[in-house]
Amino acid sequence: MQPYHHTVQYYETDQMGIVHHSNYIRWMEEARVDYLAQLGWGLDKLEALGVVSPITALDVRYKRSALFPQVIAIQVTLTRLTGVRLHLHYVMKNPQGEVVFEGNSEHCFQDRSGRILRLKKHLPGFAQALQEQVVPEP
Amino acid sequence: MQPYHHTVQYYETDQMGIVHHSNYIRWMEEARVDYLAQLGWGLDKLEALGVVSPITALDVRYKRSALFPQVIAIQVTLTRLTGVRLHLHYVMKNPQGEVVFEGNSEHCFQDRSGRILRLKKHLPGFAQALQEQVVPEP
Amino acid sequence: MQPYHHTVQYYETDQMGIVHHSNYIRWMEEARVDYLAQLGWGLDKLEALGVVSPITALDVRYKRSALFPQVIAIQVTLTRLTGVRLHLHYVMKNPQGEVVFEGNSEHCFQDRSGRILRLKKHLPGFAQALQEQVVPEP
Amino acid sequence: MQPYHHTVQYYETDQMGIVHHSNYIRWMEEARVDYLAQLGWGLDKLEALGVVSPITALDVRYKRSALFPQVIAIQVTLTRLTGVRLHLHYVMKNPQGEVVFEGNSEHCFQDRSGRILRLKKHLPGFAQALQEQVVPEP
Repeated sequence: MQPYHHTVQYYETDQMGIVHHSNYIRWMEEARVDYLAQLGWGLDKLEALGVVSPITALDVRYKRSALFPQVIAIQVTLTRLTGVRLHLHYVMKNPQGEVVFEGNSEHCFQDRSGRILRLKKHLPGFAQALQEQVVPEP
Repeated sequence: MQPYHHTVQYYETDQMGIVHHSNYIRWMEEARVDYLAQLGWGLDKLEALGVVSPITALDVRYKRSALFPQVIAIQVTLTRLTGVRLHLHYVMKNPQGEVVFEGNSEHCFQDRSGRILRLKKHLPGFAQALQEQVVPEP
Repeated sequence: MQPYHHTVQYYETDQMGIVHHSNYIRWMEEARVDYLAQLGWGLDKLEALGVVSPITALDVRYKRSALFPQVIAIQVTLTRLTGVRLHLHYVMKNPQGEVVFEGNSEHCFQDRSGRILRLKKHLPGFAQALQEQVVPEP
Repeated sequence: MQPYHHTVQYYETDQMGIVHHSNYIRWMEEARVDYLAQLGWGLDKLEALGVVSPITALDVRYKRSALFPQVIAIQVTLTRLTGVRLHLHYVMKNPQGEVVFEGNSEHCFQDRSGRILRLKKHLPGFAQALQEQVVPEP
């Protein structure tokens, strides 16, 4: 899987002169959306199948400030897949190769009525594609 | 109708040390939502009736910088109502009473399938309530 | 300390029909800014003293979806204060009193050149005010 | 000058199922930043020279809804350059080549103290580079 690249936008800075911390959470989504699209299971395809994927938890650590107009490289790793939960890990690096951010997100899958879906049962092809990507955290 | 008050948030600033200009567009929406709620026709009520209200145009002028953590007072005026279009005018003032922003927005009303609605025909009560608020621009 | 109230904005929703998850991170900041202002040490005052307060980590759990135009009540608790780190806990409830979100944030304090400040040494009044608010997590 | 491409992000949608209108204003900035960088006068270079460029006005027209995850092509044209004002025009098209948005923005240039700068006097090289790009609107 290829890393995702985000160019820091001016509107993402704040009056400390650095990227506002809430934007990294959005970049996690950008990289996740790209990751699923690379896998052939984009969010648009999932939604067309009646499946949405809300986030259930996240934990992150801010290491350095990202700055306008850096290009940030984001590597996504699928660290765990249970019957109903997907766990992803993210590392973001600045153009100097320094880690600016690390984080994890946890997701479930639901139908439009909000019912939790078991991936293996409802979307076996997607479950299989995800399973092949699992790289447990060291 | 009462003015709407928005407290400038830290995440709305940018590295110039002022509020990023895109946020005023969001405050126009905040004030418009509040205006319609004051009128008894909140967006949530309209959506429950199957009506959405996309913006079709806006023009704005930035006069002064709004700053964190100012409270900005926003006055909304309904300047024109045609068969299918709603025109609103906005004036935003800082705590010193100085105008920081002036703007206009134009809206239509649609059903969920995207069909333009004639307010007098489809929502006569709402059309009547809006009509009573019209204050043409000088 | 009084809870902070945030009215969900239309622009905070996404095409799942719920509040986009990145906005809760911004509401944490809104509530934190309000908390510090209630304490008499608003971010604007701190910045005027040459002190900024970047976030170093956060971990959060999404429990239920917040919806437009709910008013969300946010309770902030100061759970820990070390020489250089501030730990805050947040609980957000919808108008029905149900918890929609819980989270923690961790902050440091820096001068304008990016040097980490020891609160007791550099801002003893602020350190004292914070210390009196500490409520360790159960 | 090459058009700029923006991939619609999930967090840019709202509960109407389309891109929230405030995001187009941010895409105008993305395209403008890219335009100035292509010209060799990126905002980061200008800021390093002590020059900031606040927006003074904008007027826009929403033609069609942009949708997740479309790639939107944005063409920027410099339509007018006066002693103290820069006027830009933007056309945004969806992957089908349909215009989704048209708009104009107006900018001034200031030093860090907020003083308006005359480009020809203070940044003659930049003024010259801009002048060569002017394409008056028909």
